[in-house]
Amino acid sequence: MSAIDDMLHFNKGVVRLYPGIESKAPPRKRLAIVACMDARIVPATHLGIQVGDAHIIRNAGGRVAEAIRSLALSQVLLGTEEVAVIHHTDCGLLAPSEDAVRAAFLARGIDPGGLDLLTFSDLDRSLLDDIALYRSSPLLRQDIPVRGLIFDVATSRLSEVDAGALGR
Amino acid sequence: MSAIDDMLHFNKGVVRLYPGIESKAPPRKRLAIVACMDARIVPATHLGIQVGDAHIIRNAGGRVAEAIRSLALSQVLLGTEEVAVIHHTDCGLLAPSEDAVRAAFLARGIDPGGLDLLTFSDLDRSLLDDIALYRSSPLLRQDIPVRGLIFDVATSRLSEVDAGALGR
Repeated sequence: MSAIDDMLHFNKGVVRLYPGIESKAPPRKRLAIVACMDARIVPATHLGIQVGDAHIIRNAGGRVAEAIRSLALSQVLLGTEEVAVIHHTDCGLLAPSEDAVRAAFLARGIDPGGLDLLTFSDLDRSLLDDIALYRSSPLLRQDIPVRGLIFDVATSRLSEVDAGALGR
Repeated sequence: MSAIDDMLHFNKGVVRLYPGIESKAPPRKRLAIVACMDARIVPATHLGIQVGDAHIIRNAGGRVAEAIRSLALSQVLLGTEEVAVIHHTDCGLLAPSEDAVRAAFLARGIDPGGLDLLTFSDLDRSLLDDIALYRSSPLLRQDIPVRGLIFDVATSRLSEVDAGALGR
């Protein structure tokens, strides 16, 4: 059975257990999370995010550069008022250089061309860079908290990065 | 307490319950999911996706146009071999026109400028368009299944869209 068939099968049982939420109301926690797509992060399990709680935006690395459209829509259409950016230890994008990751593409016969892979070489720095990028966007609310967090995949621990360190 | 403080507090209890996964191995199900950021979709609850199972890429609408970098990295670096694209009923991007959503930005004093908001006016069509976009990308694996699914937020039911309908 393919993983997708597996998922459809699992979902059949769910329909009887959980009533849906029809309303397009703002998320209960008025929170938007930007996190890495990594399989080892499960917001429901690790962060207590339940149905209706928060918008979850995820991409490779949890990069804000690729989350601006979604964050803007989250804020303008659905009134979220807090942003958490979550990067994590042992991330696939945590590489000595963008070229190192680019080489993996070329080895597969895929030319990434001008695609910015958004790799990074320092975890704290990538978070601070992403918060700075958020803070420079005219599309996003600047009157709300935007906080950077690191998820440790080896311990499941979430910790906050001091945004005051941005100027270091 | 802010939603982020709430999340950090919840996580303190988790650290004792769940051992982390240190290895950057491929996701157990070798699956990558592209889904909307909507708060009413929780992959763990609705799709049975547990820690280590799958890459989860999420953005406003669950649009493939914004997921190509992440999908490529998922396939090249971490060997995923199946792709599920999940859009849903009552989506904020399901609008009569892009201008209708653009008006909500302008009403807030935000000029979205040239930003493509990636709205859509037909749910089946948006999925088929996204699968077609995937199939046209030289960055992505074309030898694996890519399937389109609709999540009904009112019933929690996941159903598949017939990709054969693409030519209609």
